[in-house]
Amino acid sequence: MENLSTKELINGIKSGNKRLIGKAITLVESKKPEHRTQAEELLKEIMPLTGKSIRIGITGVPGAGKSTFIENFGKLLISKGKKVAVLAIDPSSSLNKGSILGDKTRMEELSKEENAFIRPSPTSGFLGGVANTTFETMMICEAAGYDSILIETVGVGQSEVLVSDITDVFLFLKIIGGGDELQGIKRGIMEMVDVIFINKVEEENTIKAKNTKVELLRALHFLPSKEKNWKVPVLLGSALKNIGLEEVYLKVEEFISLKLKNNTFEKVRQSQAEKRFDYWVQEYIIQKTKEEKSVESFYELHKKNASELKSNPSSEAKIFVEKLLKK
Amino acid sequence: MENLSTKELINGIKSGNKRLIGKAITLVESKKPEHRTQAEELLKEIMPLTGKSIRIGITGVPGAGKSTFIENFGKLLISKGKKVAVLAIDPSSSLNKGSILGDKTRMEELSKEENAFIRPSPTSGFLGGVANTTFETMMICEAAGYDSILIETVGVGQSEVLVSDITDVFLFLKIIGGGDELQGIKRGIMEMVDVIFINKVEEENTIKAKNTKVELLRALHFLPSKEKNWKVPVLLGSALKNIGLEEVYLKVEEFISLKLKNNTFEKVRQSQAEKRFDYWVQEYIIQKTKEEKSVESFYELHKKNASELKSNPSSEAKIFVEKLLKK
Repeated sequence: MENLSTKELINGIKSGNKRLIGKAITLVESKKPEHRTQAEELLKEIMPLTGKSIRIGITGVPGAGKSTFIENFGKLLISKGKKVAVLAIDPSSSLNKGSILGDKTRMEELSKEENAFIRPSPTSGFLGGVANTTFETMMICEAAGYDSILIETVGVGQSEVLVSDITDVFLFLKIIGGGDELQGIKRGIMEMVDVIFINKVEEENTIKAKNTKVELLRALHFLPSKEKNWKVPVLLGSALKNIGLEEVYLKVEEFISLKLKNNTFEKVRQSQAEKRFDYWVQEYIIQKTKEEKSVESFYELHKKNASELKSNPSSEAKIFVEKLLKK
Repeated sequence: MENLSTKELINGIKSGNKRLIGKAITLVESKKPEHRTQAEELLKEIMPLTGKSIRIGITGVPGAGKSTFIENFGKLLISKGKKVAVLAIDPSSSLNKGSILGDKTRMEELSKEENAFIRPSPTSGFLGGVANTTFETMMICEAAGYDSILIETVGVGQSEVLVSDITDVFLFLKIIGGGDELQGIKRGIMEMVDVIFINKVEEENTIKAKNTKVELLRALHFLPSKEKNWKVPVLLGSALKNIGLEEVYLKVEEFISLKLKNNTFEKVRQSQAEKRFDYWVQEYIIQKTKEEKSVESFYELHKKNASELKSNPSSEAKIFVEKLLKK
């Protein structure tokens, strides 16, 4: 990586230079000790400039139309004077064009907008064990003046939890048909969602869509309310045809207003910051362990016991941690 | 949880008592300090009894027919004299009947078999932040004499990495049509897979299936080989109609033989054990931090700085970790 000073990066961020914003993000994604030191310097400096955006999580199974939705919803936000940053939380998201059998370009129009910034997740991502730094990437985007952050995730597994842990409002894109299993609607996801958008509704499937809506509302009825006085709305539309996106926008605004009124907006962000703290404690302990020579030798010893399959990994880990904290 | 001694649990495991096997699994899933101590005792004791199974990972998007496949493939294994344990890595898997809109019973026949043991992942799972203990659950099943371990995951996101990190062979279930995006075929997944099974092949879609096979083989051709002298086979069949499962079985056997011959079987298991060690180091550090009073006070201090949104979480975490390791 080109050696840019923290000051240069911060000036780049403040002036909205997309190339330098990108460099700053690459920096906070890095695990190298020297990069971490600079990354923390940078994050500390920009901290007062962050927190002023609305953070919107978007989920849905592959095929739910997430990239089309983000393309047109992003353009709608821009038309309302917003600056939009689009981030992805996992390497299998539609932002990462890692598809083998096809190779469509995504969000082509949005990416050309002056007031849009699109950043896929690091492709070596979870696979290579890179730290999950979407939150810190978001901080940089906020410092650069982006006031609407869209964070995309694939609608299965752990990634929703990650998104839900760093956003203010969580949007669920659903398509009709295929049964609930194919849609990956699980109790966990439904409980995290604030607004549901049934996408790809056309004239010929309107009745089906309305039935799906009724079913969803019935299911939601049995779930505990996440936010006081909020009933999760189920909206119908077509992202491709720009139908229903204005309604989504209004519901998002309404939800944020309610959170501000309920005093939960700030509270949730605080508990999110605590979770990030815990995440980084883990991350830094592992990084430090690998750096310090004295620790490294008994780390290697216990790891070897595990790798030679003589002892089970968790017991060896427990012994190592007990030694580490007694040192 | 009922208070059973480690000895009682181990005897239960050795005698194949399914109720006690279940209790032992619940024990290793727990994060409570007193449970952890007993869990490590138990894992240490059973360690010599573990490692003698074939560990098979199975992935595919929701709707690919994973539960039907496991049901009939499991029965095939039993008919060959094997004892089969079925585990799930994530709460959205088909093993967890957490579906809201439907409530089908899964693997009904397999679950009635004397030589089968089915264990869904803890439902509070990733959502509740429970440790990922599928590896340790597998150890218990092996100690109980299960020699074929099937580990199911949903085909998107991080969970494949988790499965790939604890199994000997990785099976990918695919269905025809829907485009590659809907199937979640991403470079990362393709590079982890050892055997591909195109499921739900019927007379009327045989041509489509064969085309998909050609496309897959073409895509695989461009990927680096994971195992020396192994070309990932693409098999066609129908799990529901018991077509093609014998071929899957033979390919799995062939792959394991090759790994033994290449000397990679043991090597991979060793590096997997190292990864588990690292995982548990993180897990135990967090647990210990929350236990010890002296550490807890400055942990709380820095966490508060983060939660009050005065300072960014990662910088506070870095300061805390540096203090912790200097103590």
